[in-house]
Parts: sequence; C-alpha cells; structure tokens
Amino acid sequence: MRTTVGIIGAGPAGLLLARLLRNAGIDSVVLEGRDRAYVERRQRAGILEQGTADVLRAAGAGARMDREGLRHDGIELRFDRRRHRVDFPALTGGRSVMVYAQTEVCKDLIALQLDEGGPLLFEAEALAVEDAGTDAPRVRFRHEGREDVLECEYVVGCDGFWGVARKAIPAELVQVFERTYPFGWLGILADVPPSHDELVYARHDRGFALLSMRSPSVSRLYLQVPDGTDAEAWSDEAIWDELERRFETADDWRLERGPITQKSVTPMRSYVHEPMRHGRLFLAGDAAHIVPPTGAKGLNLAVGDVVTFARALAHRQETGSPELLDAYSETCLRRIWQAERFSYDMTTLLHRAPGATGFEDRLQLARLDRIASSRAAETDLAEAYTGFPFG
Amino acid sequence: MRTTVGIIGAGPAGLLLARLLRNAGIDSVVLEGRDRAYVERRQRAGILEQGTADVLRAAGAGARMDREGLRHDGIELRFDRRRHRVDFPALTGGRSVMVYAQTEVCKDLIALQLDEGGPLLFEAEALAVEDAGTDAPRVRFRHEGREDVLECEYVVGCDGFWGVARKAIPAELVQVFERTYPFGWLGILADVPPSHDELVYARHDRGFALLSMRSPSVSRLYLQVPDGTDAEAWSDEAIWDELERRFETADDWRLERGPITQKSVTPMRSYVHEPMRHGRLFLAGDAAHIVPPTGAKGLNLAVGDVVTFARALAHRQETGSPELLDAYSETCLRRIWQAERFSYDMTTLLHRAPGATGFEDRLQLARLDRIASSRAAETDLAEAYTGFPFG
Repeated sequence: MRTTVGIIGAGPAGLLLARLLRNAGIDSVVLEGRDRAYVERRQRAGILEQGTADVLRAAGAGARMDREGLRHDGIELRFDRRRHRVDFPALTGGRSVMVYAQTEVCKDLIALQLDEGGPLLFEAEALAVEDAGTDAPRVRFRHEGREDVLECEYVVGCDGFWGVARKAIPAELVQVFERTYPFGWLGILADVPPSHDELVYARHDRGFALLSMRSPSVSRLYLQVPDGTDAEAWSDEAIWDELERRFETADDWRLERGPITQKSVTPMRSYVHEPMRHGRLFLAGDAAHIVPPTGAKGLNLAVGDVVTFARALAHRQETGSPELLDAYSETCLRRIWQAERFSYDMTTLLHRAPGATGFEDRLQLARLDRIASSRAAETDLAEAYTGFPFG
Repeated sequence: MRTTVGIIGAGPAGLLLARLLRNAGIDSVVLEGRDRAYVERRQRAGILEQGTADVLRAAGAGARMDREGLRHDGIELRFDRRRHRVDFPALTGGRSVMVYAQTEVCKDLIALQLDEGGPLLFEAEALAVEDAGTDAPRVRFRHEGREDVLECEYVVGCDGFWGVARKAIPAELVQVFERTYPFGWLGILADVPPSHDELVYARHDRGFALLSMRSPSVSRLYLQVPDGTDAEAWSDEAIWDELERRFETADDWRLERGPITQKSVTPMRSYVHEPMRHGRLFLAGDAAHIVPPTGAKGLNLAVGDVVTFARALAHRQETGSPELLDAYSETCLRRIWQAERFSYDMTTLLHRAPGATGFEDRLQLARLDRIASSRAAETDLAEAYTGFPFG
C-alpha cells in the first residue's frame, strides 16, 4: 500500500486529520488497531473549545454537533460555601465552548471518512514506523492476520500515549517532561438529566468534584479519589452521597440521582515529549502529550496539532516550502505548554493533595477568591478555558 | 503611664499608626526596643504601592517621598533570553509604585512624631502584653534600666516576627499557616547608579536575580542563593559576575559595578497567624504575617493593617460601634492572603528550586510567556504589584 500521509490511529486527531487532508486534496490512509464499535464507544473528552468547534464546522463535520451539542457560555466554581460563575462570552469577546462527546465526534468523522474519504482500516495494528528520517517512511502493520507495509511520504502518529509512533524517534534526540499526581478521577455516566445547566467545578476539603454532561439526558460526574482506587469499591449510593457532600448545594440547584451506567477511574498525568517531529514522522495529540483532565484540554490540543500539520503540509504542496513543516514541533509546543500550564493550575487549584498543608488550602481559597473578584484573573481563566489560538 | 493606644514597635507600621491616630485625635504611646539610629538604618523594603504612597501623603508624611522618591511605571521581566516590560499605568488605569526606602519612611515618620506626636520611647523593650482579653490591656516594658507598665485601652503589636505581642493570644485560639523555601536572597547595597531605570526580575537556570535601587545613586541587587548561605563567602567580584550571568544583558542595558557597602542574606518565608486580634490586642505587619520579598509586599501589608485599625478605632470613637474593630482580623486577612498568594506565585515563578524538574522549568517559562502575551494575565500581575485595595 502506498499513500501520501500515513495516519496511525482513528481517534479524533487521526480522523480529523484525514478529513482536513482530503479537503486539501491530499491522500491519506488511516490505520486503527481497534474495531469500529470500540472507537465509537470509548469515553473520553466532552468539551470542545470554540476553535475546535469552528474547525469541525469548516471541515464539514459540524452538522450534528450544531444540532445536538450544547453550547456553554460559562462554568460555575464552588468553594468555601461560595459559588461563582465565569461568563465566557462576556470575558473573551463572545467565545464559548461546546459540550459534545468525543464518541460523537468520532462517529461523525468515521461516517464521513467511510463515505467520502480515503481508506480507513480498523483492526489494523501499527507495529512500527520505519525510515522516519528518510523521504520514504513506512508503517509496518498487521491486518486480517497478516503483516503489511504502508509506504508514505509522511507519517503522523495519532496513536495515543501507548502508541508505537513515538518510539521511532531516536532516544538521544528526545526530552520527556512529566509529572504525576497522587490522585485520580472516579468518573460515572448516569442516565439522568444534568442537575445544572453548566459544568460545576467544586473545590472541597474532601476533594474535588465535577458535574458535567454528555447530553440533555446523560450526566457525567467525577470525584477526586486516591491514586489506585478501584472503581468497583465504590457503590452507586456512596458515589452519589459523596458528590452531594462535595457540591454542598443547599440553596441553589440540587443533585439529581439516576442509574449509573458506567464507572471508571482515570489516573492523572502531565507529559510532554519533545520534539514532536523526526524527519517525516510527526506526532499529534496524546502520542506526544498528556494533560490532566481538569480544564478539558486533551482533545482540543490534538485538534490544534492536526490543524497545524494539515496547514503546514498544504503549504508545502502549494509553495514547495517546508518552513511550516519544519516549524511544526515548535508551533505546537508553544500552545501545548500553555495548556499544560493551565491544566496543572486548574488541577492544583481544585484538588486536595494528600497531606496538603493549611497554607496550601488557604492559597487555593485565595486563588479562587482572586478569580471571583478580579476581572483580569477571571479573564485569564476564561481565555484559557475557551482555548488558546492555534499556532 | 496611660494612653488610649499602646503601640509596640517603631517600624513603619507602628510609626504610621501613631501618625494616623494623632490625625484622628486619638492618643498613643510608641515603645521601641532599639535605639533611633538602628531603626533609621535597618535595610528592609523599598517599594511603596500606590495606596501606601497615597496614605503617607494624606497623613502629612509624603513631602520628602514626593521630592526624592522615584515613581516607577513598570518592571522588566527577563527569561529565556527574552525581556518583557509590564506597564503598570496602562494596565491598571494609571497606578504605579514609588521607590523610596523603608529607612527614609521611618526617618520621616520619626521626625514628625517627635515634633508633633505623642510619646515615642526608644530603647523601651516590651516584655509582655497583659490582660488583652479585658477592657484594660497593659504592656509591661523595660526602659532606662527599670520595668514600667503602659496602661491602655487598646494595644497594637507592630513588633515584627520576633515580637512579644503575638504571644499574648492564647495558643488554643491560634492557627498558623507557614511555608519555608529552600533558598534565600543575597542582597547588596552598592554605590553605583542603577543600571536600569526600573526593577528587573530575572528568571535564570542558575537562579533568580533582581535589580532594584534605593536612590539615583544607590543600587540594590539580589541573588537567589541556597538556604543557609554565608554572605561573606561571596566576594564582591563573584557577586557581580553572577549577577551579570543571570541578567544576560547582551544587547540592551549593561550592569554597572560599584563599591558594595552592605551584604547580607535574607531567608524566605510565608507565614500567617490567625486571628490577628484578641480582645483589645491587635497585631499588625510582620507580627502577624510574613511574605517572601519577591513582589515587595511586606511593608505595604503592614500599612494596610494599620490603616484598617486606625479607621476602625476612629469609627468606634465617633459612632460607638465596635463593628469595624470586630471585623479587623477578617478585613486584614482577605488582603493578606491575596498578598501571600501573589508573593508565593512570584517566588515560584522566578526562583529555581533545588532539584526542580524539567517539567517545572517549562511551567515557569510557560507562565512567563503567558504574562508576556496575554493582557489579562499581565493585568492580573500589574494589579497585584501596584497593590490590592485596603479592606
């Protein structure tokens, strides 16, 4: 098999990239190790930045999102028995976010790709990227029981944190930046209309809690739990009780309970792999960087990466100049480090670390008080939440 | 001896409080353990927030400050071979800071007090505050070789971190919030005109450096050094060499050297004592809270405390209502925690902790990049630097 751009991974990054390239008249092949049902079902992000929603629309993949997604103009912060709403459009000149689950983004992009796009192979497991440093990189993969090779001009690794693409960059060229957190998120999906019409981020002495949603009938809720917690150790009732305690909703909205349909624990990690490019191999999304989920940046970073790559390659094809491709890593990393910073700050602002000192608790409350009382500090948050510009 | 307000300590807090009370027609006596020459010579802060300068003017103590002080409309941040100026008036609606050394503030206030004010006793060492919980608190002190008692209606402890006033608050009512840092500042005074006309805060892989000044002919410079460093272990030449390395001034201003007249190491600490009031005893300034010096908040916090107390007591005398006095601790602490947060953030933004990870280094650079590229983030800093409102 031969193509211009070999894309490893049919998550939102790989699928969107295939779509952007097709729209620019550039061939690609997408290899995905899992089957279609798995990809369409795996629960991940759910908040699309203004810029991400705009990209999906411009790519011709925004129709259902605009029908079924929920535009959100703010979030609520709860702390110290106070509540504060951050009004995004008022602070950012009209920007907002869209609640539309990653599963739905993937379904839309898969349908488009199968209908109008180039090859998208499910259960095609990438084994290695070879000759990344040459003009003819190759992806070795296994499909329908036998090994095959995809000959490419460019390879983009959209294959996530556990993928193989990253491994093709020689170790001596790589710097890894990393931080782990001594807690995770116990997340649930529940068949109950969201109890509040916007996301609610709660800082509580017992730990962080987040109210989110996937649709007008499905709630998504999270509890900070110690690292290594087993989701099954939490009964449904214990989860609802603990959520209620942390939100402390006495006088405003009330937490409605409903059947829990899914329950899992996500660990938290910050991770950046530099550079994101080696020769003709480019990394995008989780293959190169991970953020803790507080702040909802993961999917949006991946979108920024593939937009940057598609633009750079189109520029190369149109003008012959490799300058944007050469700048890919640097261009992406500036935005990525802003998102890493923001995700770290939101995490440390709202979670209670084991053994946190009284001084640290007071710092958190002072930060939240600052956001609630300074338009500048609040704008800083709103700008970051609705999204940093693509590079 | 008997007075309305017994003030322990003739630093800027105690001296300004005596002045504010006199202007409100309220008697006070100031007890200071050291002699006058010591108080007028001890090197401390040098940056007055807009609000602090305004208070000194309104108190009739701003004439020399306005003649000799240097109004500063910005600071320079240096990092990663970049420079960025923060323009205070443009970001805060016209606010700025004043460079005028604490020694000069003290000289001005002492002269006024001795000329027009109530008793100011030097070498009068406070030994204890007694009966703080009653309507008749007392200060036991030693003066001219014998013990004496100051009978008061109110006592204000402006006697610094090592003072006795704080000890009169029963331990079971007290909460202490504290953080130490694994580095300090090696500070010098040098007889050389400042090499740059505004303060320069430099983040460098070798550690933080700060260019400041006391007057048009005296420079004040600081280097981050490991905790426990002996100032005498640094030769003058080694200090200048290291400053030059950290400022990396290749293409803009150059660091001018001159005779170093003073050299000392300051440890760094964050500390808050709650509450700041017990009965008729009130704590102000370093007696109740310490900030690391990055951000220049210490003196300005002390001024906020005594302004709040003077206002509250005047309100009590005029209306009979104790409500502002009762709210003293809470009113001060909201502002103090904002300054603690800001001082902590400035410190962690600019200093390199021993054993800092690559991730932490990149976070610092991302934060600095954010300040340099977002008006909201820059405004947040400028508002904090020029001063939070008095409670």
